Amino acid sequence: MNPKTNNSIGIVSPQTLHFTERVQLKSGDHLEQFDVVYECYGKLNSNNTNAILICHALSGDHHAAGYHSAEDPHSGWWNNLIGPGKPIDTNRFFVICTNNLGGFQGSTGPASINPATNQPYGPDFPMVTVEDWVTVQSMVADRLKIDVWAAVIGGSLGGMQAMQWSIDYPSRIKHSCIIASTPKLSAQNIAFNDVARQAIRTDSEFYDGRYYEKNTVPSRGLRVARMLGHITYLSDDLMAEKFGRNLRDIESIGFNYNPEFEVESYLRYQGDRFAQSFDANTYLLMTKALDYYDPAEAHEGNLSRAMAPAVCNFLVISFTSDWRFTVERSREIVKAIHDNDLNVTYAEITASQGHDAFLLEIPDYLNVFYAYMDQVFESTLDIPDGGPK
Amino acid sequence: MNPKTNNSIGIVSPQTLHFTERVQLKSGDHLEQFDVVYECYGKLNSNNTNAILICHALSGDHHAAGYHSAEDPHSGWWNNLIGPGKPIDTNRFFVICTNNLGGFQGSTGPASINPATNQPYGPDFPMVTVEDWVTVQSMVADRLKIDVWAAVIGGSLGGMQAMQWSIDYPSRIKHSCIIASTPKLSAQNIAFNDVARQAIRTDSEFYDGRYYEKNTVPSRGLRVARMLGHITYLSDDLMAEKFGRNLRDIESIGFNYNPEFEVESYLRYQGDRFAQSFDANTYLLMTKALDYYDPAEAHEGNLSRAMAPAVCNFLVISFTSDWRFTVERSREIVKAIHDNDLNVTYAEITASQGHDAFLLEIPDYLNVFYAYMDQVFESTLDIPDGGPK
Repeated sequence: MNPKTNNSIGIVSPQTLHFTERVQLKSGDHLEQFDVVYECYGKLNSNNTNAILICHALSGDHHAAGYHSAEDPHSGWWNNLIGPGKPIDTNRFFVICTNNLGGFQGSTGPASINPATNQPYGPDFPMVTVEDWVTVQSMVADRLKIDVWAAVIGGSLGGMQAMQWSIDYPSRIKHSCIIASTPKLSAQNIAFNDVARQAIRTDSEFYDGRYYEKNTVPSRGLRVARMLGHITYLSDDLMAEKFGRNLRDIESIGFNYNPEFEVESYLRYQGDRFAQSFDANTYLLMTKALDYYDPAEAHEGNLSRAMAPAVCNFLVISFTSDWRFTVERSREIVKAIHDNDLNVTYAEITASQGHDAFLLEIPDYLNVFYAYMDQVFESTLDIPDGGPK
Repeated sequence: MNPKTNNSIGIVSPQTLHFTERVQLKSGDHLEQFDVVYECYGKLNSNNTNAILICHALSGDHHAAGYHSAEDPHSGWWNNLIGPGKPIDTNRFFVICTNNLGGFQGSTGPASINPATNQPYGPDFPMVTVEDWVTVQSMVADRLKIDVWAAVIGGSLGGMQAMQWSIDYPSRIKHSCIIASTPKLSAQNIAFNDVARQAIRTDSEFYDGRYYEKNTVPSRGLRVARMLGHITYLSDDLMAEKFGRNLRDIESIGFNYNPEFEVESYLRYQGDRFAQSFDANTYLLMTKALDYYDPAEAHEGNLSRAMAPAVCNFLVISFTSDWRFTVERSREIVKAIHDNDLNVTYAEITASQGHDAFLLEIPDYLNVFYAYMDQVFESTLDIPDGGPK
């Protein structure tokens, strides 16, 4: 794929910010210093009003759009939505995506060297939460002289960050776009996450999280975790349509444990690829951050009260076949926004692709996004005159 | 619990039949000899017309009702439905439940000694299918002089056996009761099974299925497999109701990997218990039998044509919150029965308990079962006069 001909932002490079300020974490723990790797696309305008923060999900990172080289076969994870002429239009906006703390793709995380020991942090890396990521993202904004985000946008776990921004920094965000997300995980969601964690943590190569020192990785557990996760990202209908009971390169059932059905072959491939590239400790941390997120908890479960500090406008989008974070969960967010007399555009997109729909080019989805981003763009124009409207 | 006071069949004992006849399996493989362990409850009448075959599911066995001793805290798996005065009334019926071939609870399976090697079969035990089990059950019926079952009854994987009996031995079955089942697994069903299998097969203690010889068991993989399976047996709503986001014996989140939410604690306990008692090779075989079952496959996917040999009456029951085998799958069975101009009683039971509902005392469910079993009982009375009606 030629980065220059597919309406892509083209070739992009990550940059790193080093922080020597102490960051206090929700767990009570802290980090004395840390790095944040990020990418940015488009140009910051002269008033610094057109900056957009993109928040990544469980297995995402700072590489949200474009390509890392002319030969790079893989674009950033939200290349469908971010680029020139795309909904998150890099001709209009200055788009930033940071790698969350706890990642392994450049920001400080369990695989990074702990200055106290000169060994990888491993299990000594503190638990991080959605709130902590928002804190760190605010430090990144300070460093880049972005006082106010035109929008903070995220899907799934990224949507939780977009929501938390509206609560924690109401004066620094004009629009919060919460896609395919939820205000808290259900018991079933937590259960799936814990099965994934148990698969990783009971892998004989996990060594209590100190596998770096053993020059190994708990790839079997990570593979199972990813296979399981992948099922929850797709809808039952999509799997039926895509794979059904089709056999894989064989005439008939072989009565053995090789991959016989296409769906087995597909999932094992996805699991293998992930296990070769993703850090297990990061995966554990990200799933815990998902489980812990529950802004209503400090308000006796009342999400409307949790969102009381918010003043921005909202876009909320859900997908009909998403059984991981169902449309009902998005409606809870919409209700809490309404209860606070704030503006919200809500779209329930009919789509068969399940949770992963938020990553895909689905016309109805893109159209809603285009229309909303026009509003966001207009809001970037009037700041110099009268401040946030 | 006192077996004599809870409307239970009381204390029961398994029996074993040894077969020296060769059994040909669907895979092309065969066994020269094998054992089948079974339990029976109630009395066979003088005409041998009141016999009922109970077929067990993935993790079940021949111990369907009653207790093994006065101190036994655990009843058989379908004690809610089988016993004196219960829907499958042991005052009326002679009830038999066999342990399927491939099990480890007494019937010949991977943990049994292979006479050819004097070692456990392990991975050399042949793949077994729903059709093979029906074949073996017919050999058991022959041995016990039961020409015709008043009913063959099963839930889930057991329902597949009840369905297959109607196809393979139409003259030997008067009623087929197919509960919480499906005519074939979906891609998503197969995917979940394959994740479970991969968890077991990649456990470092699996040793290609020869763990018996190493005096170990792949308990970590089996534990993960069971945790995952368990999620699919419960409904999202039931998990929300039963566990929600409740914490387990802790005041607040501890930011560690101990079980923090009740649902984690519950699932890990279930997984541990299962891993200590269930044979991994049997689990693998049972999940493959589930995946392979598809009677319509030999008829270009036409289930109605697959069921053309059937002549018996049917009871089909599904549960509204069962997302493993949804009500739509049961409706496919009902349609195929209708297409063959056969009688079917179909009930869609409103229940929040998910797939596991078929094991539980749900009044609407029991009432349908009682009513249908009255018909089954009536049909046992008129055989001596005019043969099967």
